[in-house]
Amino acid sequence: MGKRIVIALGGNALGNNLPEQMEAVKTTAKAIVDLIEEGHEVIVAHGNGPQVGMIKNSMDKSIPMSVCVAMSQAYIGYDLQNALREEMLSRGLNKSVTTILTQVEVDAADPAFQKPTKPIGSFMSKEEAEALEAKGYTCVEDSGRGYRQVVASPRPQGIVELNTIKTLVEAGQVVIACGGGGIPVVKTEGHHLKGAAAVIDKDFASCVLAQQLDADCLIILTAVEKVAIHFGKPDVEWLADLTPAKAQEYIAAGEFAPGSMLPKVQAAVMFAESKEGRTALITLLEKAKDGVAGKTGTAIHQ
Amino acid sequence: MGKRIVIALGGNALGNNLPEQMEAVKTTAKAIVDLIEEGHEVIVAHGNGPQVGMIKNSMDKSIPMSVCVAMSQAYIGYDLQNALREEMLSRGLNKSVTTILTQVEVDAADPAFQKPTKPIGSFMSKEEAEALEAKGYTCVEDSGRGYRQVVASPRPQGIVELNTIKTLVEAGQVVIACGGGGIPVVKTEGHHLKGAAAVIDKDFASCVLAQQLDADCLIILTAVEKVAIHFGKPDVEWLADLTPAKAQEYIAAGEFAPGSMLPKVQAAVMFAESKEGRTALITLLEKAKDGVAGKTGTAIHQ
Repeated sequence: MGKRIVIALGGNALGNNLPEQMEAVKTTAKAIVDLIEEGHEVIVAHGNGPQVGMIKNSMDKSIPMSVCVAMSQAYIGYDLQNALREEMLSRGLNKSVTTILTQVEVDAADPAFQKPTKPIGSFMSKEEAEALEAKGYTCVEDSGRGYRQVVASPRPQGIVELNTIKTLVEAGQVVIACGGGGIPVVKTEGHHLKGAAAVIDKDFASCVLAQQLDADCLIILTAVEKVAIHFGKPDVEWLADLTPAKAQEYIAAGEFAPGSMLPKVQAAVMFAESKEGRTALITLLEKAKDGVAGKTGTAIHQ
Repeated sequence: MGKRIVIALGGNALGNNLPEQMEAVKTTAKAIVDLIEEGHEVIVAHGNGPQVGMIKNSMDKSIPMSVCVAMSQAYIGYDLQNALREEMLSRGLNKSVTTILTQVEVDAADPAFQKPTKPIGSFMSKEEAEALEAKGYTCVEDSGRGYRQVVASPRPQGIVELNTIKTLVEAGQVVIACGGGGIPVVKTEGHHLKGAAAVIDKDFASCVLAQQLDADCLIILTAVEKVAIHFGKPDVEWLADLTPAKAQEYIAAGEFAPGSMLPKVQAAVMFAESKEGRTALITLLEKAKDGVAGKTGTAIHQ
């Protein structure tokens, strides 16, 4: 029996520039179509860090971040949907695949707006960062690898285009949605949605998407096969199975790096806690199929 | 009984820059929601001339035209879907609206690839045009208004995401598709679709979309209420009703300006000829509702 699976692709699945992207999506498509071939319904979400930074820096300064996120969904979705289409057709799977321009509602009062933390764009020298800060942007030094621009990263509250995504999934189609965590919008007076100067974390957005689609499984892809405690130490322990409660304990103990494994585990816990029977899986792209079959990865469930 | 209507928006419906676009889409949404409120199924297509030119000129030279068209669909669709959503909700219509990243297949052997004709981007001075031509682009002088870059404009052959659009229309949703005439792609070996350095005419793309969706009506919006013969002359004659044969006569007599009314009449004729009962309507945005009711505009049908 097929499961309904939301899969959140990380940066490795997309590459850092267009030639890399056009290659990376081929490998990514193979791993995703492996799941589709097994009879699962798959909804694909993805990040957009390098891409939205590149777009924002290319465009006129007056173009807001929300519009840049929208454009990044097209920039990535176009290649990704074609790679999926081609891979499915080459295996005799005749399923439609499409990219849905997705808006994600955030709360205007989210404290994240007061403290930009999400890195976007490529690494810069100190001098480049200072020049950008002089224009009113915020930059931070990132893990010794140079400087990056940062924007606010509020928590996703709901998926505006949910009904459309659901209609297509129920029609047996493959949907790419919530690209880059979705276009961040806030409700204002009447029925107006206003773009927000932010980038939503794609793992949290995928978690909300998976909950609202009543998915069975949320797969968060990353650069390691399993989540570990004592990561990078001699007594490293790779985890196969975790309850939300146990994961919360490890989070409280500071086991997971902020901006790296921490938000992934937090999103996974949020999904697993939301309803009995829901499983969040954290693993490598090429292990997704084995992970869904219970053979590897870190599964978080009640 | 509601009709299935594909509506092709022209440049006036979208404005020439982002602040203009955010205003223009409000008026555009009112006219479109007038049709939805009457019970018609509406699929919205639109042009992207100024927008794709701006995006292409902003981005790194290595980003192909096809990717820029994809981004223009998001740049426009984001504002357009929100204006439609807001206008519908303010009238108590609870319908989903979404932008479908749409690819349109063209023939690699289309002679249009040998002769770029489609103007994109804003007007330039002679010096700016010469600088762009030195980089390998083609520019032409446009109707005494200055110079513009031109790209190839091959004829659309089919809508790649047709099945998705159809699924949503049949579910009662409002779809924005074929933005900018669609992302131009050519079939290569296997199942691969390769982006083409081109911009497809949005009226021809809308005509193919309307045919493939088996629409009853194709509305091509323009800056005049009706099509005329002897346009701009004392004996100007505004046309209310035309058969495809009569329209072909006028086309042969050179009554319609190339790059302006001619492709609109050609697309309208193509749609009207494709099946009995199909009507193409050419009129103003604000007259669309009256036009569908048979009160104004130029209707072309067998």
